[in-house]
Amino acid sequence: MGALRKYLPFLEWATSYSRKDATSDFLAAVIVTVMLVPQSLAYAMLAGLPPEVGLYASILPLIAYALFGTSRTLAVGPVAVVSLMTAAAASQVASPGSALYLQAAIVLALLSGLMLLAMSVLKLGFIANFLSHPVISGFISASGILIAASQIKHILGVSAGGGTLPEMIGELLPVLGSTNWLTLAIGLTSLAFLFWVRKRLKPLLVRWGMAPRAADMVARAGPVAAIAATILLVVLFDLDARGVKIVGAIPSGLPPFAVPLFDAALWWKLLPGAALISLVGFVESVSVAQTLAAKRRQRILPDRELAGLGAANIASALSGGYSVTGGFARSVVNFDAGAETPMAGVFTAIGILGATLLLTPLFQFLPQAVLSATIIVAVLSLVDLAAIRRTFAYSKADFAAMALTMAMVLLVGVEVGILSGVGLSLLLFLYRTSKPHVAIVGQVAGTEHFRNVKRHDVVTSPDILSIRVDESLYFANARFLEDTIYDAVATRPQIRQVVLMCPAVNMIDASALESLEAIAQRLESAGVAFHLSEVKGPVMDALKRSDFFTHFKGQVFLTHHQAMSTLSATASGTASHKTPPESVHDMAGAGA
Amino acid sequence: MGALRKYLPFLEWATSYSRKDATSDFLAAVIVTVMLVPQSLAYAMLAGLPPEVGLYASILPLIAYALFGTSRTLAVGPVAVVSLMTAAAASQVASPGSALYLQAAIVLALLSGLMLLAMSVLKLGFIANFLSHPVISGFISASGILIAASQIKHILGVSAGGGTLPEMIGELLPVLGSTNWLTLAIGLTSLAFLFWVRKRLKPLLVRWGMAPRAADMVARAGPVAAIAATILLVVLFDLDARGVKIVGAIPSGLPPFAVPLFDAALWWKLLPGAALISLVGFVESVSVAQTLAAKRRQRILPDRELAGLGAANIASALSGGYSVTGGFARSVVNFDAGAETPMAGVFTAIGILGATLLLTPLFQFLPQAVLSATIIVAVLSLVDLAAIRRTFAYSKADFAAMALTMAMVLLVGVEVGILSGVGLSLLLFLYRTSKPHVAIVGQVAGTEHFRNVKRHDVVTSPDILSIRVDESLYFANARFLEDTIYDAVATRPQIRQVVLMCPAVNMIDASALESLEAIAQRLESAGVAFHLSEVKGPVMDALKRSDFFTHFKGQVFLTHHQAMSTLSATASGTASHKTPPESVHDMAGAGA
Repeated sequence: MGALRKYLPFLEWATSYSRKDATSDFLAAVIVTVMLVPQSLAYAMLAGLPPEVGLYASILPLIAYALFGTSRTLAVGPVAVVSLMTAAAASQVASPGSALYLQAAIVLALLSGLMLLAMSVLKLGFIANFLSHPVISGFISASGILIAASQIKHILGVSAGGGTLPEMIGELLPVLGSTNWLTLAIGLTSLAFLFWVRKRLKPLLVRWGMAPRAADMVARAGPVAAIAATILLVVLFDLDARGVKIVGAIPSGLPPFAVPLFDAALWWKLLPGAALISLVGFVESVSVAQTLAAKRRQRILPDRELAGLGAANIASALSGGYSVTGGFARSVVNFDAGAETPMAGVFTAIGILGATLLLTPLFQFLPQAVLSATIIVAVLSLVDLAAIRRTFAYSKADFAAMALTMAMVLLVGVEVGILSGVGLSLLLFLYRTSKPHVAIVGQVAGTEHFRNVKRHDVVTSPDILSIRVDESLYFANARFLEDTIYDAVATRPQIRQVVLMCPAVNMIDASALESLEAIAQRLESAGVAFHLSEVKGPVMDALKRSDFFTHFKGQVFLTHHQAMSTLSATASGTASHKTPPESVHDMAGAGA
Repeated sequence: MGALRKYLPFLEWATSYSRKDATSDFLAAVIVTVMLVPQSLAYAMLAGLPPEVGLYASILPLIAYALFGTSRTLAVGPVAVVSLMTAAAASQVASPGSALYLQAAIVLALLSGLMLLAMSVLKLGFIANFLSHPVISGFISASGILIAASQIKHILGVSAGGGTLPEMIGELLPVLGSTNWLTLAIGLTSLAFLFWVRKRLKPLLVRWGMAPRAADMVARAGPVAAIAATILLVVLFDLDARGVKIVGAIPSGLPPFAVPLFDAALWWKLLPGAALISLVGFVESVSVAQTLAAKRRQRILPDRELAGLGAANIASALSGGYSVTGGFARSVVNFDAGAETPMAGVFTAIGILGATLLLTPLFQFLPQAVLSATIIVAVLSLVDLAAIRRTFAYSKADFAAMALTMAMVLLVGVEVGILSGVGLSLLLFLYRTSKPHVAIVGQVAGTEHFRNVKRHDVVTSPDILSIRVDESLYFANARFLEDTIYDAVATRPQIRQVVLMCPAVNMIDASALESLEAIAQRLESAGVAFHLSEVKGPVMDALKRSDFFTHFKGQVFLTHHQAMSTLSATASGTASHKTPPESVHDMAGAGA
């Protein structure tokens, strides 16, 4: 039963599902459905796909996630950033609008679903950690700008393409003259209305006496009002005949269940794109799920989340949809509207299915400019200037990774953007740890404490050098450690003993082990004894697995104070006796 | 003067150069010259180049290194591994023996020289740290096997090619029937003699009363004896007419000074190979130089070494030579023979120049099989089985990187081998630090010490959770930290306060900062207070640069004991007052 619950997390809540839960979930589902229908159409358009594909991606995936996901309140479906990534990857193999393009989008969903499942089985969720916050944040901000820019053509009612910001600007400028003024009027009015709804409506409603939560829900329904009003305008005044582009006929009916096209060459080409979609989708989804779970002191299991998202994407691909993930805005709405269990997702799926069966004839008259306006309003909130400023103030290295990601996303493409950001953050991390903080320490007079000679007024011994290194020792800083110690000894000819203080050394890898051996041996050949102090338990265990102690002629001290008193007592340079590994172990065990 | 000395390190020793130094250097140079002449011919053959190219690479580069290098005793010139890498890179653009192949080898030297210089100017020497010990060691062992295998054809006197081990075996097997028995006899006899010289001659000479150091020098001259004897045999019995392949005519005279071919497409294709040659050469050279410098308590400056090696390689390219680096065996010989300053390198260069001018007519009768035998004997000592065993015992992760490097070098190629090893060691390092050691700690009764509850018998508080994390906090483990703390809190509903103990946290990057903020905020929304203890000075400085403390509602404690006594006193859940950043700073400063 425990194992079953692990793989089918819904058993946890389904067995005690109450009438009260059902009422809460149903109400939340109604609100999320109202929000999700226009979003699904808009994000499908953003991904370069027919509008119904967005609806299909909002039905079965929600049910699959409800069965396999561990978050109680996450709402999955199409989201802006993943739609942009889908467009970028699919347009590398086909032109938007073609049948192959649609197949490519479906295959991307299938591949990323399979990858997420594989990561779940192989416990590879840690790979997502490679996407550091600055890279993700820079990526999302730049994507927001890119998405907003890509929608300008719909607001103007012109035709233009381009995958990067310079390309978009280059294609827009020559066609500005053919702007459709009616479309522009509708687009700008919608934009103004949606911004007003987002910023002002809630405070207004609250001032009028509405409860804050209800006011929030009403404000979230703003896009629905804009959509209903503009559909009405188009129908009444026959605007589509006057050049206002509308969504056009949307096939109604059940999602088309089908196995995606199998074409090894196509799959292979889409693999990198699918991998990035998986990782970005997973990172976004997990952080949303974690934020919400923490509020109610619930748990999510990242490895199970991989399975839940994987199942949702596979379900999407099998029912004619494209890549989905947990969306921030809709999950918060779901949570705030009182959803108690993933059953809310099932109810939402039923709601979207209802809309797909019954409402599609209405949406055909919806102006594309209005959908674009909803996209622009939604994505501009993704541009997080505060995060950029904060990162700049906190760490130039992190800011460099963020800036490179943003520049690359805007100028070259989303995939290159992410990959170069990840590459740079790895490089910078290695660079930082390759030159760790090292202090020569001395004793604070009258205490057993040893502190940096540069920061504190301390007592040092003329012939004993105490060095503390504040980093794990591994290949990237092994040579730095050697250089540092040789330099320190070469510039202080009177030194006869060196004690390396290791309270911050959490790991010593094989490269650093070789370096320690080399240091010990080279110091010995120069007539200097080499000792260690305050080595941690796990590090000591590892050293004992090696033959380090068969060559090591120095001692290992539990505390640095012990080291200094022992070594001062035996006096300069004379026979430092070797501590046998057994007793060394006992000391380290106590010090762990 | 100080600045000048920095860039022209020879000023350091040249200004006080004495007659005694000159005598020592001259004697060392004679011995190194005798060793280097046959090595130069052999390694040029290994690189697929005409023999004189090896001699050219042993003249001007030595003088350039003497001017710009910081090691007193490093002996630069052609070495086995770099010759193999040159062959691998050059044969990607031309076939061995062609004029273009020779140009490619010269361009490789020039490019790697320029790269080393650039790394010196930009202080990018740390890039070499990416080559971890297991990767370098695995690479060198596998190269040794590959080089030995590549020489078997010369010992057999057959024609065969192949760049990988399976290819070599595949090409050798069909032509075994055409073995030249005379060549095989010469080759095997030379092999046996050289192995005997290497293993047995020195102890024998010592037993006969020779001083150990002199015996060592005589044993090092073994190849010269083999070469002289076989040249004599060939001349006396006209063996080349009987199918024994000889080195053939070597042009005598000064090295051909010329600017290498400039061809942007060719340079671009050779760039990755040149980059790897630079890094491998630098790592090898620095570790040899460091070993020798430490013995006499001298210093080498890695950034200056880059310049020295860069100058040596550019000098090689401009004088018709190929890539050079500091060799282990010859540097040890130079050191043991008593070299005092880089002047020994200048004398050696003059010696090699003399050999190039006068002795080349003799070497034309040297059987290739004998050169191959010297190569095989030299490179088999590169195969370090003990290192493989040691790495396996010490760390499975390091062993995995080593094994992958070896397998890839033998089966695919040297460049793929290094790159996949580096990639895997980075991945494994990130994986290791992404799941750091985390301990829930309690107080050792009657002391102020806090230890792991799993390892020690400690006292814990029912509503305060103390967690210690033994790693710097950065993007790869930021999510792990979040998961760990949420899990710990979610499974202990009675917890009202969490204290994160940070004595081993050497850095908090922007990702981890976001995670800490998320943890604080999420715990707060679940009614749990979040505090920090034992934060290091530099980490605290960084936190204060961010806006962390404008949101953080918890406290920062100098010691964990302070944290526990303060929090226990204020009791569960009631108003934990905020410490203003100023006082926080003072506390952290004292704790650094």
